[in-house]
Amino acid sequence: MSRFVFGVDIGGTTVKLGLFDTEGNLNDKWEIPTRTENAGENILPDIAKSILDLMNKKNISKEDVEGIGIGAPGPVDESGVIHKAANLGWGEFSIKDTLEKITGLKVMAGNDANVAALGEMWKGGAAGCKDIVMVTLGTGVGGGIIVNGRILSGYLGAGGEIGHIHVNDDEEECCGCGKKGCLEQYSSATGITRMGKKVLSSCDDPSALREGDVNAKTIFDAVKAGDKVADRIADIYGHYLGEALANIACVVNPEVILLGGGVSKAGQVVIDYVKPYFDRRVFHGSSQTRFALATLGNDAGIYGAARLVLS
Amino acid sequence: MSRFVFGVDIGGTTVKLGLFDTEGNLNDKWEIPTRTENAGENILPDIAKSILDLMNKKNISKEDVEGIGIGAPGPVDESGVIHKAANLGWGEFSIKDTLEKITGLKVMAGNDANVAALGEMWKGGAAGCKDIVMVTLGTGVGGGIIVNGRILSGYLGAGGEIGHIHVNDDEEECCGCGKKGCLEQYSSATGITRMGKKVLSSCDDPSALREGDVNAKTIFDAVKAGDKVADRIADIYGHYLGEALANIACVVNPEVILLGGGVSKAGQVVIDYVKPYFDRRVFHGSSQTRFALATLGNDAGIYGAARLVLS
Repeated sequence: MSRFVFGVDIGGTTVKLGLFDTEGNLNDKWEIPTRTENAGENILPDIAKSILDLMNKKNISKEDVEGIGIGAPGPVDESGVIHKAANLGWGEFSIKDTLEKITGLKVMAGNDANVAALGEMWKGGAAGCKDIVMVTLGTGVGGGIIVNGRILSGYLGAGGEIGHIHVNDDEEECCGCGKKGCLEQYSSATGITRMGKKVLSSCDDPSALREGDVNAKTIFDAVKAGDKVADRIADIYGHYLGEALANIACVVNPEVILLGGGVSKAGQVVIDYVKPYFDRRVFHGSSQTRFALATLGNDAGIYGAARLVLS
Repeated sequence: MSRFVFGVDIGGTTVKLGLFDTEGNLNDKWEIPTRTENAGENILPDIAKSILDLMNKKNISKEDVEGIGIGAPGPVDESGVIHKAANLGWGEFSIKDTLEKITGLKVMAGNDANVAALGEMWKGGAAGCKDIVMVTLGTGVGGGIIVNGRILSGYLGAGGEIGHIHVNDDEEECCGCGKKGCLEQYSSATGITRMGKKVLSSCDDPSALREGDVNAKTIFDAVKAGDKVADRIADIYGHYLGEALANIACVVNPEVILLGGGVSKAGQVVIDYVKPYFDRRVFHGSSQTRFALATLGNDAGIYGAARLVLS
């Protein structure tokens, strides 16, 4: 009889769920809406119902299930307590205890970015590695850090919040966190767009970007087409991210740094602009650290959540 | 019958050894010279002989010993392989396998700064905590990071090398590592002295430091006596260390940051100059991180080495 494990990735609008065997083969994948009303009180019961329904349908008994892993958008500590998830309306409580009570199954929980990193370590761009840093370049810059095969959660679940590393003393605009000069002000999709508009308005040089939308995708498309202004914008992205990652490498000495998230869909070019700044700055103890692209896309979260149960 | 564990801390000139019970009580402590000649080939045999002699003398059988823990001055990975220890003449080899073969006892090995952090977590300034960053302010700036009760070694044992975090783009002098602007150029004993001399020669303001030695001790003594030039020097130390630690906190979210090493003998003042810069810069997820002084002094290494065996 096969043994199963569920991986769940809670997002602000949808919850992704996956049914895996214990080897990490994805047997089934589906989504349900995230009902955030009433302080998100329905989210875990909805997940429980959806999983129990599927088990019924597929004739899977509780004895066949190793457990449920969950990634949630907020700081989650080692014990499975989330300290706040503003997007879901959640305050502080134990995801693990709550969902175990409803389902009668073992539950493990982690922060979504950390869990995605674990997924990439298991079946994605860092398969076979035990020490990785995953950088998710999306609306913000998220981080997930795996140390010796385990998620680095930190004291209150705020480990891997690398988007808020300070990189620029001269910044005048505020980051979403209230500080000035955070990494995600330059290297997130939003940050790249912001810097793109700044560079374009500060010069008269011709650029394909002067017509149409300016965003991370159009900027990296223009880079690939040889656009010199786009090259300058990408260089700002790479400069801050590469130098920040060199400092992060001093702290955690990763085998691989994975770049993922929407921005990384541009491909190898997102590494090419980071690597020279990283190499110039990195301490020799981490000079063997290599870069790679994440490969699981939006499924990294359900893979990592499933893996959490098997650790 | 009591159970015992040995803790060993290999330094460039002496090896410190301790005999502990499994509760962490130090029963005996002694030193032997570090014989670095012939590529350090005698170091591990000397340690083995010293331990086996003591066991003989005290009538301790191998069955009564949990094992030997070792801290060494170089990058040591999770498997007990050291990747180089220039001070000892060592290249790459397994400390664990080598010493296990000679002694017939279980051996665990780690980097000395990481192992000292583990000691402070077990019986020192961070007792009761599981997530800590220890900063050793000595000739250089060493770092030891504990995540969920375990040492963060990293891929090739270079985890926690926080002295080489880049903090200043404008530096013109080289760090020992060959780069410019590393944390230890400002916040180590050597760095504080260097900055002290720079500040003194750049102004004519009266200062007690203009007579006698300028070093970390005399500078912090002068700070305590209200010397305004010394205050400016200490502020440089605190500025770079506080801001670097805020970035480190983004990565590992520690419960406690411990300051240890020779500079920290000045006491609470070494925290007082760091904390404001940390607080101003830290991401809110780590705003509850607190500072404390290390308490085990030179014994942190043997405590941590013993703990390594019991993890």
